[in-house]
Amino acid sequence: MTTNIRTIERDAEGRVVMLDQRRLPFEEVYVTLSTVQEVADAIRDMVIRGAPAIGVAAAMGLALGARQLPAADFDAGFVVHCNIMAASRPTAVNLFWAIERMKGIAALHKGDARLDALDREAALVYEEDLATNRAMGRNGAVLVPDGARVLTHCNTGSLATAGYGTALGVIRAAVEAGKRVAVFADETRPYLQGSRLTAWECVKEGIDVTILADSAAGHVISRGGIDLAIVGADRIAANGDTANKIGTYTVATLCARHGVPFYVAAPTSTIDLSLASGAEIPIEDRGPDEVTGVFGKPIAPVGVKALNPAFDVTPAELIAAIVTERGVARAPYGESLAALCR
Amino acid sequence: MTTNIRTIERDAEGRVVMLDQRRLPFEEVYVTLSTVQEVADAIRDMVIRGAPAIGVAAAMGLALGARQLPAADFDAGFVVHCNIMAASRPTAVNLFWAIERMKGIAALHKGDARLDALDREAALVYEEDLATNRAMGRNGAVLVPDGARVLTHCNTGSLATAGYGTALGVIRAAVEAGKRVAVFADETRPYLQGSRLTAWECVKEGIDVTILADSAAGHVISRGGIDLAIVGADRIAANGDTANKIGTYTVATLCARHGVPFYVAAPTSTIDLSLASGAEIPIEDRGPDEVTGVFGKPIAPVGVKALNPAFDVTPAELIAAIVTERGVARAPYGESLAALCR
Repeated sequence: MTTNIRTIERDAEGRVVMLDQRRLPFEEVYVTLSTVQEVADAIRDMVIRGAPAIGVAAAMGLALGARQLPAADFDAGFVVHCNIMAASRPTAVNLFWAIERMKGIAALHKGDARLDALDREAALVYEEDLATNRAMGRNGAVLVPDGARVLTHCNTGSLATAGYGTALGVIRAAVEAGKRVAVFADETRPYLQGSRLTAWECVKEGIDVTILADSAAGHVISRGGIDLAIVGADRIAANGDTANKIGTYTVATLCARHGVPFYVAAPTSTIDLSLASGAEIPIEDRGPDEVTGVFGKPIAPVGVKALNPAFDVTPAELIAAIVTERGVARAPYGESLAALCR
Repeated sequence: MTTNIRTIERDAEGRVVMLDQRRLPFEEVYVTLSTVQEVADAIRDMVIRGAPAIGVAAAMGLALGARQLPAADFDAGFVVHCNIMAASRPTAVNLFWAIERMKGIAALHKGDARLDALDREAALVYEEDLATNRAMGRNGAVLVPDGARVLTHCNTGSLATAGYGTALGVIRAAVEAGKRVAVFADETRPYLQGSRLTAWECVKEGIDVTILADSAAGHVISRGGIDLAIVGADRIAANGDTANKIGTYTVATLCARHGVPFYVAAPTSTIDLSLASGAEIPIEDRGPDEVTGVFGKPIAPVGVKALNPAFDVTPAELIAAIVTERGVARAPYGESLAALCR
């Protein structure tokens, strides 16, 4: 199964070309971004989303921006670019991980060699992510039995990564291995990544998919309709606590109540050993508009207050295993994650 | 606090006039229904919803229809009317309870006296519901501390009843008693009764309200942001298992995990002692359109499959108390509910 979804790439001039995910599943429109600020805006405005894809976008954006800096002021300008990128979204650690990689490369070289090295590093971040996702798929597919009914939340496929996907990559790998898999995709309010993006990807690539309101998952699980759940991650603390799209914690809680295994699939770049627990992970609060309306159509009285936390934290005790490109970690995560990251 | 919301009433000709809840919160439009079939269609199409309000609508519709039956064929015609009404929605027991009440009255009288008795009974169902809700409010308000942050799900206010409300009636009574209450209303996908109806009622009547995506409730509860949850019910089995709007079970599960009391408020007419447990409650599956779109705006790829269970069952073990007009029942519910219903 070759994914034919072009989430993010660069054109011949190094500009960043993204599939505008805000317009899916209705239109496949690509935007071309010509500056660091435009790439950062696209991340903030969710033209692209998904922790690994955000990391790739940041690397490509910094390589692009580097060529626009005056050689004499490169160092100061590059710091400004990194700060612009870092301010786009706070929760996904892959953003900061990609920025640090680019900073490290910039410090090693000078002049044109530096620009070329940054280009190569951005390409490497992209290629590594693809390879990482395929390895994660191989490692995780053994957890998916033939005939499994798999619940997932948000979008963790090609659209969330350089390609292939994390949690949806594991599902994809199981399908490629010949297993019959039925995907149940939470719609994932407020931004509807499930019904818009996961459904679109699955339909496009021939994976059996059924969408449901987030609040219906508990009913389906309670009636024995789900064999396992698998989700992605935006940041994993050293103890295994996992920040992911709002609603993930609810899925994990329901799975625990019914003895349904709940898995996380994420590259090791998502693991942040500097944070002891999930309590330290910053949670992005987004504006009320995503809750008071659906893509411009109001659904609530004018002026009503709304909460819109974009992520939540699932405690490690609810997670049966964390699938990475280097292997599958199980509790106690303090040890298993540290071993994978060494 | 006098509610100025006119959910359902009859005009001088006995026709049933309803506020069209499908068009809230944007337009206050009233529809006038002239036949049993029109009232049943309005229930099925959710012009009106909420278990107690459905019961009132059924009673008014049957009284209206009775006057249109030929006297010679009254008995057969009335059975047909009852069957039409019973086929509108399967889960809320108040519908069947109201139909049985009307059948009982029809059997007691003849001729014009029967028509007048059915009119009076429909008026009684309406007035009783109002009185029941006020009593429920008084009984439940003691459970709401001053300063409470109260999570609710779906709409259980004036719009779901003849007036005042069940769970929202308890909140209303607490506010009337001078307590400061902050309501957190789950938006309640797919039909958005929370963001459309509960938010509209609260804004209209000066109750502090904040809406949130259903999947955000777990995060807010986990961070200590909710002091209690209270919801309505569509049917309560003899053991206390409670069918209510899809997503209720998830709220109860999250509350249990965090030691937050989870209450149900419902009139005793919602208690169905003929069912031993929630496993026997029929759960309505609605069509996919509510999940694949939001009020006509598509949000998913064309043709994608969708699940749309309209209700779920919360096991009695997760319910701290059931507030009724006759008092507050606590576990073991097998005994306490039977005592209340005697």
